[in-house]
Amino acid sequence: MKSILIIGAGLSAKVLINYLSKQAKQNDWKITIAEQNLHAIEYIDLPKIQLDVTDDKARYECIKNFDVIISMVPARFHFLIAKDCLALGKHLFTASYISPEMKAIEKEVKEKNLLFLNECGLDPGLDHMSAMKLIHNIKHNGGEILEFESSTGGLVAPEYDNNPWNYKFTWNPRNVVLAGMEPAKYLDNGKYKYIPYHRIFQWTTNIKVAGLGDFEVYPNRDSLKYRYIYGLENVKTMLRGTIRRPGYCKSWNAFVQLGLTDDSYEIENIDKMTWKELISAYLPNIPDKSIEDNFCDYLGINRNSQEFNKFEWLEIFTEKPVGLQKGTPAQALQHLLEEKWKLEVNDKDLIVMQHNIGYKINGEYHKIKSTLTYTGKDQINTAMAATVGLPLAIAIDLFMQGKLQKTGVLLPIEPDIYEPILKKLEEFNIKFVEEEI
Amino acid sequence: MKSILIIGAGLSAKVLINYLSKQAKQNDWKITIAEQNLHAIEYIDLPKIQLDVTDDKARYECIKNFDVIISMVPARFHFLIAKDCLALGKHLFTASYISPEMKAIEKEVKEKNLLFLNECGLDPGLDHMSAMKLIHNIKHNGGEILEFESSTGGLVAPEYDNNPWNYKFTWNPRNVVLAGMEPAKYLDNGKYKYIPYHRIFQWTTNIKVAGLGDFEVYPNRDSLKYRYIYGLENVKTMLRGTIRRPGYCKSWNAFVQLGLTDDSYEIENIDKMTWKELISAYLPNIPDKSIEDNFCDYLGINRNSQEFNKFEWLEIFTEKPVGLQKGTPAQALQHLLEEKWKLEVNDKDLIVMQHNIGYKINGEYHKIKSTLTYTGKDQINTAMAATVGLPLAIAIDLFMQGKLQKTGVLLPIEPDIYEPILKKLEEFNIKFVEEEI
Repeated sequence: MKSILIIGAGLSAKVLINYLSKQAKQNDWKITIAEQNLHAIEYIDLPKIQLDVTDDKARYECIKNFDVIISMVPARFHFLIAKDCLALGKHLFTASYISPEMKAIEKEVKEKNLLFLNECGLDPGLDHMSAMKLIHNIKHNGGEILEFESSTGGLVAPEYDNNPWNYKFTWNPRNVVLAGMEPAKYLDNGKYKYIPYHRIFQWTTNIKVAGLGDFEVYPNRDSLKYRYIYGLENVKTMLRGTIRRPGYCKSWNAFVQLGLTDDSYEIENIDKMTWKELISAYLPNIPDKSIEDNFCDYLGINRNSQEFNKFEWLEIFTEKPVGLQKGTPAQALQHLLEEKWKLEVNDKDLIVMQHNIGYKINGEYHKIKSTLTYTGKDQINTAMAATVGLPLAIAIDLFMQGKLQKTGVLLPIEPDIYEPILKKLEEFNIKFVEEEI
Repeated sequence: MKSILIIGAGLSAKVLINYLSKQAKQNDWKITIAEQNLHAIEYIDLPKIQLDVTDDKARYECIKNFDVIISMVPARFHFLIAKDCLALGKHLFTASYISPEMKAIEKEVKEKNLLFLNECGLDPGLDHMSAMKLIHNIKHNGGEILEFESSTGGLVAPEYDNNPWNYKFTWNPRNVVLAGMEPAKYLDNGKYKYIPYHRIFQWTTNIKVAGLGDFEVYPNRDSLKYRYIYGLENVKTMLRGTIRRPGYCKSWNAFVQLGLTDDSYEIENIDKMTWKELISAYLPNIPDKSIEDNFCDYLGINRNSQEFNKFEWLEIFTEKPVGLQKGTPAQALQHLLEEKWKLEVNDKDLIVMQHNIGYKINGEYHKIKSTLTYTGKDQINTAMAATVGLPLAIAIDLFMQGKLQKTGVLLPIEPDIYEPILKKLEEFNIKFVEEEI
């Protein structure tokens, strides 16, 4: 009897757990969940272990007893688990980016005949798989790829999109508030682009999705390195991005410009502050000027605009208390937005992913657009939980069944990994629509 | 015979070494210098030890043999030395800010009857001493301080100020390029202000210095904490800043806006790049638009302005090679500016420090302005080396003579430390001019 340990069973893990539980029954695998907060997962009908993932000894002793480890903890903790897996000879699966530390143990993982499969969720994950399928196909047909643009967004489904930001939290709010906090690096038409954090939300491009209309995309971290990972060394445009509804980025940028997304210091006396006072701390003192006018003038916003309406709707110019005992500006902003951007019980979320690829075959230029849209079913089976959890669950299933016989620190970019996963995902209606333009 | 070890003998240490050498002869102290690069200090006529300050064992063994340690190494290394001093029971002097780690060992230092005197150079150092003298004096006279603004700048003397930036490097160029890379926190007329790095150079104020004209000041790190350090808990305005000539900050801000002061990643293919190409990597691709127009439009700069002239003078729109084998944007910028902002052999530097204090006595409002200006003598005896090195050297002299009998992790804010230092500095013509306004 083979055994699986899932470490961390947050919101994102539910679809994954459901899928693997069914497979476990059929195949006589044993699944156990290790989680710090057992209260939060009382509803899950599987053996559980209380575990603080930062407790080196407890973590090591726990991992020791299983064959395959799935790490669903916040990204910064994966490597703690990876070290133990390497020492104990356990296989590891994650949905997070390969960190430099993870990359550094590549050789040892391979030498021990272990598989550490990472970036196997939605973004990163499904983006790699679907992109590589297109890329391999074009190359197989003798094409040369000139432009590659790929973007993903977790949004609210149009029927439930009823706030001026056209956005609700469908995922970890902290990650949304801190999104993009590193320079974006990409290639645009043969030219390098290095965009600092405080400019990223001004560097948007537009995309269209059939049936859903217009979206905007802001550049995402280091796209340059994916030239090598995807085998696109000679590409002229290489850009990975994040999708929002039009207007979101321009307004979000106002918070970035003010400095309200900073998570590095605490605000003095925040427990006594109103939102009006907090916003004023980021604006010049101008006597006799209203905070609304001061805000608009400082940021170059027209007070009679939809853009301004977004801020007014957040009540940040009012005597509304910040409502934290202590906190950083980013924590204050997150606290407010968790109230304002809440996904209601009956709301459904929406995943949009789109690749735009330009290529040449026999001297002729082609453009292909491949789009995934997927709407959540309910509060548990959200589009986000499904599109993150299912690719990872299917990969683990394949591995457990002996159908994924690779070793090393990998991401899902080879056909023998992505093809069976993409095929299986179609059964769940997670599939791409391709258009030649 | 008492012994002193000076660790790190860069540019900044020369005046300090001269002062202490004279005193050592008179008092029969032994001074030794520990430095990584002995070549660079061949001209110094003192016993020398070759030391890599990051080599834990060598450092410990070296410190062991001396009574008093002076750390002149880059700020990030002070704590390595401090740990050894604590373990070995040695006194320590630095001209750098007290780090959180240094603060954390306060109690142990006190228990061992050691003195770790920090922030005893120019800024921090002389700024604290001269400010505290004013503050104690006003309080002694029954005054209540309402506004405190203090600023310091290391500049080029007017006779040698012959470039459009009105600036030359008179100190560590790396620190100038990376200056202000954290949020500025201060109080303005009773209101908190938190300014993110990418806005700091837009938040300037103006000051005037008799005989030298106009300057501008950008806010510097965390001014809030100095309310407690200076005993100004009820002050309405509390601002510490850095002085530049008018126009510098607006233009420097252009580099910040572009992202060229980022030191966190390396530019691909920088060895083959021209400045025009590097600047283009931070601008949108706009066909048929000159780089000059693109730059001006992106940053909101008028092409027919003195501001634009500053950038043209730097040759950043030309085919001039960046000239680095590899490097971050900040390193590339530093490399260019080290050529353009070089302090020539016969140039002299200038230190300007000014405190502006508003206070009330018997219901009456007063304003006092206290200004230090000091011009360097030659390449060795620069204003910067003198104003950093002499306060520290005098403090050490006092300590060695038994005239500074304090223990703990301290900065020079008590009269029994700052009074003898300020008095001695007057002999070197380092003195403040006070004006009631």
